[in-house]
Amino acid sequence: MVVSYTNNLANLKGFGAFWKLLFRWRGSVYKMVWKDMLVYILLYASLSCIYRFGLTDDQKRDFEKVSQHCGHFRNLIPISFVLGFYVSLVVSRWWGMYLSIPWPDTCCILLSTHDSIGRMLRCTVVRYLNLAFVMTFAMVAPGVKKNFPTLQQLVDAGYLTANEREILENMEKKTAVHKTWVPFMWACKTVERARREGRVKDDVTQKTLTDEIIRLRGCCGDILGWDEYNIPLVYTQVVTIAVYSFFLFSVIGEQFLDPMHTDQIIDLYVPVFTLLQFFFYIGWLKVAESLINPFGEDDHDFEFVALVKRHLEMSYLLADPQADEHPNMLQDEYWS
Amino acid sequence: MVVSYTNNLANLKGFGAFWKLLFRWRGSVYKMVWKDMLVYILLYASLSCIYRFGLTDDQKRDFEKVSQHCGHFRNLIPISFVLGFYVSLVVSRWWGMYLSIPWPDTCCILLSTHDSIGRMLRCTVVRYLNLAFVMTFAMVAPGVKKNFPTLQQLVDAGYLTANEREILENMEKKTAVHKTWVPFMWACKTVERARREGRVKDDVTQKTLTDEIIRLRGCCGDILGWDEYNIPLVYTQVVTIAVYSFFLFSVIGEQFLDPMHTDQIIDLYVPVFTLLQFFFYIGWLKVAESLINPFGEDDHDFEFVALVKRHLEMSYLLADPQADEHPNMLQDEYWS
Amino acid sequence: MVVSYTNNLANLKGFGAFWKLLFRWRGSVYKMVWKDMLVYILLYASLSCIYRFGLTDDQKRDFEKVSQHCGHFRNLIPISFVLGFYVSLVVSRWWGMYLSIPWPDTCCILLSTHDSIGRMLRCTVVRYLNLAFVMTFAMVAPGVKKNFPTLQQLVDAGYLTANEREILENMEKKTAVHKTWVPFMWACKTVERARREGRVKDDVTQKTLTDEIIRLRGCCGDILGWDEYNIPLVYTQVVTIAVYSFFLFSVIGEQFLDPMHTDQIIDLYVPVFTLLQFFFYIGWLKVAESLINPFGEDDHDFEFVALVKRHLEMSYLLADPQADEHPNMLQDEYWS
Amino acid sequence: MVVSYTNNLANLKGFGAFWKLLFRWRGSVYKMVWKDMLVYILLYASLSCIYRFGLTDDQKRDFEKVSQHCGHFRNLIPISFVLGFYVSLVVSRWWGMYLSIPWPDTCCILLSTHDSIGRMLRCTVVRYLNLAFVMTFAMVAPGVKKNFPTLQQLVDAGYLTANEREILENMEKKTAVHKTWVPFMWACKTVERARREGRVKDDVTQKTLTDEIIRLRGCCGDILGWDEYNIPLVYTQVVTIAVYSFFLFSVIGEQFLDPMHTDQIIDLYVPVFTLLQFFFYIGWLKVAESLINPFGEDDHDFEFVALVKRHLEMSYLLADPQADEHPNMLQDEYWS
Amino acid sequence: MVVSYTNNLANLKGFGAFWKLLFRWRGSVYKMVWKDMLVYILLYASLSCIYRFGLTDDQKRDFEKVSQHCGHFRNLIPISFVLGFYVSLVVSRWWGMYLSIPWPDTCCILLSTHDSIGRMLRCTVVRYLNLAFVMTFAMVAPGVKKNFPTLQQLVDAGYLTANEREILENMEKKTAVHKTWVPFMWACKTVERARREGRVKDDVTQKTLTDEIIRLRGCCGDILGWDEYNIPLVYTQVVTIAVYSFFLFSVIGEQFLDPMHTDQIIDLYVPVFTLLQFFFYIGWLKVAESLINPFGEDDHDFEFVALVKRHLEMSYLLADPQADEHPNMLQDEYWS
Repeated sequence: MVVSYTNNLANLKGFGAFWKLLFRWRGSVYKMVWKDMLVYILLYASLSCIYRFGLTDDQKRDFEKVSQHCGHFRNLIPISFVLGFYVSLVVSRWWGMYLSIPWPDTCCILLSTHDSIGRMLRCTVVRYLNLAFVMTFAMVAPGVKKNFPTLQQLVDAGYLTANEREILENMEKKTAVHKTWVPFMWACKTVERARREGRVKDDVTQKTLTDEIIRLRGCCGDILGWDEYNIPLVYTQVVTIAVYSFFLFSVIGEQFLDPMHTDQIIDLYVPVFTLLQFFFYIGWLKVAESLINPFGEDDHDFEFVALVKRHLEMSYLLADPQADEHPNMLQDEYWS
Repeated sequence: MVVSYTNNLANLKGFGAFWKLLFRWRGSVYKMVWKDMLVYILLYASLSCIYRFGLTDDQKRDFEKVSQHCGHFRNLIPISFVLGFYVSLVVSRWWGMYLSIPWPDTCCILLSTHDSIGRMLRCTVVRYLNLAFVMTFAMVAPGVKKNFPTLQQLVDAGYLTANEREILENMEKKTAVHKTWVPFMWACKTVERARREGRVKDDVTQKTLTDEIIRLRGCCGDILGWDEYNIPLVYTQVVTIAVYSFFLFSVIGEQFLDPMHTDQIIDLYVPVFTLLQFFFYIGWLKVAESLINPFGEDDHDFEFVALVKRHLEMSYLLADPQADEHPNMLQDEYWS
Repeated sequence: MVVSYTNNLANLKGFGAFWKLLFRWRGSVYKMVWKDMLVYILLYASLSCIYRFGLTDDQKRDFEKVSQHCGHFRNLIPISFVLGFYVSLVVSRWWGMYLSIPWPDTCCILLSTHDSIGRMLRCTVVRYLNLAFVMTFAMVAPGVKKNFPTLQQLVDAGYLTANEREILENMEKKTAVHKTWVPFMWACKTVERARREGRVKDDVTQKTLTDEIIRLRGCCGDILGWDEYNIPLVYTQVVTIAVYSFFLFSVIGEQFLDPMHTDQIIDLYVPVFTLLQFFFYIGWLKVAESLINPFGEDDHDFEFVALVKRHLEMSYLLADPQADEHPNMLQDEYWS
Repeated sequence: MVVSYTNNLANLKGFGAFWKLLFRWRGSVYKMVWKDMLVYILLYASLSCIYRFGLTDDQKRDFEKVSQHCGHFRNLIPISFVLGFYVSLVVSRWWGMYLSIPWPDTCCILLSTHDSIGRMLRCTVVRYLNLAFVMTFAMVAPGVKKNFPTLQQLVDAGYLTANEREILENMEKKTAVHKTWVPFMWACKTVERARREGRVKDDVTQKTLTDEIIRLRGCCGDILGWDEYNIPLVYTQVVTIAVYSFFLFSVIGEQFLDPMHTDQIIDLYVPVFTLLQFFFYIGWLKVAESLINPFGEDDHDFEFVALVKRHLEMSYLLADPQADEHPNMLQDEYWS
Repeated sequence: MVVSYTNNLANLKGFGAFWKLLFRWRGSVYKMVWKDMLVYILLYASLSCIYRFGLTDDQKRDFEKVSQHCGHFRNLIPISFVLGFYVSLVVSRWWGMYLSIPWPDTCCILLSTHDSIGRMLRCTVVRYLNLAFVMTFAMVAPGVKKNFPTLQQLVDAGYLTANEREILENMEKKTAVHKTWVPFMWACKTVERARREGRVKDDVTQKTLTDEIIRLRGCCGDILGWDEYNIPLVYTQVVTIAVYSFFLFSVIGEQFLDPMHTDQIIDLYVPVFTLLQFFFYIGWLKVAESLINPFGEDDHDFEFVALVKRHLEMSYLLADPQADEHPNMLQDEYWS
């Protein structure tokens, strides 16, 4: 679920409104970083103990040289730079994915505008749309896939009739391409039938409805596209390897060395700043990790399972209003 | 309220036009930063006093080492880098939010174009649009919510009739999804009724009006989307923690140390540059804080409360012009 | 006026085509920077004289310490970084503003396509459009406001009839919102009247014309939006203060100190590189200053006063062609 | 083929989800970098051996000086900076290319909506679209070109009839411009004929179909445009030369020198960090190399050969459904 | 001409595919940089000779100090930073210009769809479009202007009839605004006439054709806008001056000084790295120089002269197909 925190931010009265954001667990950087942090601390502590208690003096001198050499590594790879560009890319794609989510609301308002279309036709179109959404989401979101692993579950949930399932299964035998667009075709054909029967009264309305259905298919196509053509693996690998190798060697290079034999000023035992640095860079990388595929069920992912339910309810609310639900027309207050 | 300052900038005659901008309080960086600055100064001064008067010589030497160690921290975290990317993202989203604000003006001009639609129908559509705007804004803007906490206030303000309130309340019982789209549906149905009654004379005009209503619903949907899917919490946390921890440790690391025992050149008592640096970075962070959720009532937020009022007035100005308000047609000056 | 210099750049034959651009005054960085530069030089020179001739030796040593301390300030604030992001933002908004400028050309071509609309109706619509442009521009551009401070000037210039002025003034009494959209409403109503009278022969043409008028209103709305919601004051202040305080302290920190008592290599008296640095950073900031509000009358601003005139001429050229101006139809050369 | 790896990322449960991505070969950075890496290692090792075993002591001292001089080169060219901007540009163009790929799905759904168009006309339009796609792809993608080197192969594959091939060949004689748009023209004419014969029942539907065909032509035009106007050669050369010359000199500058005669701390023989740095920068450059022209058959390229096949199958699935494939209309579960 | 090099890149098989790009002259960075490089080398060599052979020992010591002082200049101006942002801006504008180029292809396909429009009307519209393109291009591209300096050349080339030239010349006397939109108006009027005569059979088709003509006018307007409102001169000047002054002072600051009197390690006589740095930065700047105005005839410019020819040929190919060129309709291979 996406963690909404903007209510806290609407009114920034006084000091430290952002501070409140820091004390949250769900969707927080702490929750994402703590496991990596723990491993890092263990590695660091082990090596620190070995250096302090496990080595002879000569070995200590050698270790100090290796450590100082590793300390220079920081300047060799500009991970802040590559992270900045990479996270920018990931965030902009994440928002593109959000914008691709199809919403049936507009189509349902348009359908309900025309009483004469008839309830059965209206409800059928709405059902086809929701069916197509579920089929699309099931292709990208493991959560939806889990709820609807086969067509049978769609029949059980009322998205699909037995007759329609049969048709889809027949198609399956003929061709291997996915069948997600078929419900959109059915929806368009239903609208066309309503036009033929005179329930849709003019060509322009038919076009409006068809255009909206086609637009929704486009959204679903975009969803599939985002999923299939993600950021090239090579980019993700370069960034991940850079960040983790940076910290792998900082375990050695950031050890507190004996101030007697090196130019270190102080020995604090706990490397406060190195841990903060780790927290910062790994946290930044986690921004990318949590957004690169928002179709799952993590804290920052789009809630497709809830969306499926919401789409169904909103569809029927808008497309199938009861007869007594349209208000009477009255002169309003601003009438002169 | 957004602070407009561009009048000062239209004509940059002579030296220092930007300078005038620096002496303003409302919406200024001073107003946003001063509380943090005060806390920082107090912390710094306390520590400085303790160092100068509260410590023994040995403790001073230890403190100097810790301070020098902290001084290196600055190089470990590129806060300028992460702030640059983060603020860019926030500003581009802030502008996206601005562009999502729905304006009824176009729809009202279109309505008023057709006298034959009839005043009552026109005013009803306008009222529905404004109702939908208020309901949307109340979901995101605390200021609007305060004015219209329940449907009753909407009835009192003339946005809703008692009959319509009843319908909305009945829907509330049936489903939990929000009811903000219902007034848009009513508006579309009113247009359709006008078409059926022959007041809207052709299909194309109906489509034009319906398209515009649908577009406004899209804007309202975008507003809700911006509010719900903000910049991931993890990103905001990483940036905030980085900046504040930077300055937390700079309280120690930027102390003026005794030039006798360290390589510091001078002891100015007041850390002018550190304060400027604090001012700069915290100010930059405040740009993000003030724009990340512009739906409140801060200096840089969109004024939804005023917008609600403006929309209502402009709507009736454009959609309900008096009969004598259309000018006569004359040959103009450029006639030959 | 925007300074066009691209003719020089179309053909980059040979060495140093860009060099020619450097020897221009209008719209140049020299013209924008010289006043700040002069003040900077005076400050620097005064301080230099005081240091060299006005201080005792002990005071000199103190000054040298302060100067060296100031010299470190450069590393504390990444002004190149914040300038880079800020200027990018300003340039992209400047181009957005350019794209929002309304051009009546398309609408006039569409009007002139239909002879049957009649000259009076065509000219009236064109006049309304130009009236709306002038009213919009007067709200943002001081130059246009100066030419048309009240409605009377619009009447004098032929944009408005006395009758129309009266209507606008009556509206003024009723509501405080601006009246700039009213001429667009009139234009739409005029088109509708032409349709009712059968001069516009079909619904599709009416829609085309109305859509274009509505689009132009959208452009004007965008212009007002850019003007009202500029880059938040806090961002502009942070950047300006950072740059100027940087150079305020560089006056002290970049002084040539006595090579005998400091580690400076050489004493050149004239700080060539500091001046170049000043020129560079202040020039970069001036890019932002000159583009942040392009509605004035500076070298880089859009020429709204000239645009008003151009729009009027182009409108009548396209919308009101003389009868003998349409060419005869002939077989062309490629007829084969 | 594009390597899809997002399934691994949908649910980031637990520690190190990204880690799994690192152990893949197809489309990985290892596969792209290993050859360059090998050459680099060989160069480095050879030079290292020469320095250690092949030089006299005096030559060693000279070599050490040259090496130290080369070591400063790193600071002279900001390759991380130029790579950041260059890769950003390449990635955004790569996505633009993806968005330009034409999909026939929408057009086929629209065609199949109207049973009355008749199967032959429908299939003919679909065939023309696929023909145009193949002709476009053959112009940019070597893989498709290999399958369809001449018109004859298109005839063999059923995309083209003998009669149509003749027409295209006649055109070839008359003009040199490419003939890829001709099938789109034929498709539009076929739709117009269907309208003339009354199979397409109204003007609006004809417009809808024609608009969609025109849109697909636009996509194909974009594909050709991306191919012809790539990132200017000069930019690519500057970046490539900068990165490779950087590492050419790092072979000398990053040698482990004798700690006795230089200020190096340690002699590790294997330059771990230099290799990591090489891996990082060359990997980053390879991101650009693999995306700059995604029309080939590499791991990250769009699979045009498979796409041609998919388009054909999907087209006929959607545009030519069997009569018994449209479901019956039933009351659905949500019926009250 | 734009230099296309992507054929080399489609399939990156094996090591060093990018390397091939480095050995090209046309459109290469070498071709653009060599003149500046030569001047730089001459300056450097002259100064080097003066230092080595022309100065007394005392003068040498002074020169060394000046040189070392200049050497620090590098750190004062972040030219990589400002170049990165500037080149990004130039490249994005260059692509915007490419996207603004008008293509008549769509309009011609639409025209040819309707046989009944008649060949003469079709050809006239096509001629007007091409006329408008030539007039637009002549305003921005010196190459086209050279071919068509006056209206007479347009008449000679068959773009304009004598009658039309007269009309344009009469207009010229009445108003000073450019006449480039007039052919678009004529084209729209010709379509309207075809509608009036019943050749265009319905309003929707007329709208489709008119919309496309209007869109092409918009493209031409964009072309003129890109040309008139280029990147502000002040930005270009700041960047150019920064880069060239950087290298002007590097001539002094990067001299090899006597290792005996300075801390330089080695004296190589030829400043390999400085030349590489020059090559890199000037090459980067040349990317901007070559793209900032792509309307000329340089290696990276759009080929407007060839485009004019291509547009004409493609227009007549698509809009004026011979009667026997439409294929017969047959059952295709996928018929069952």
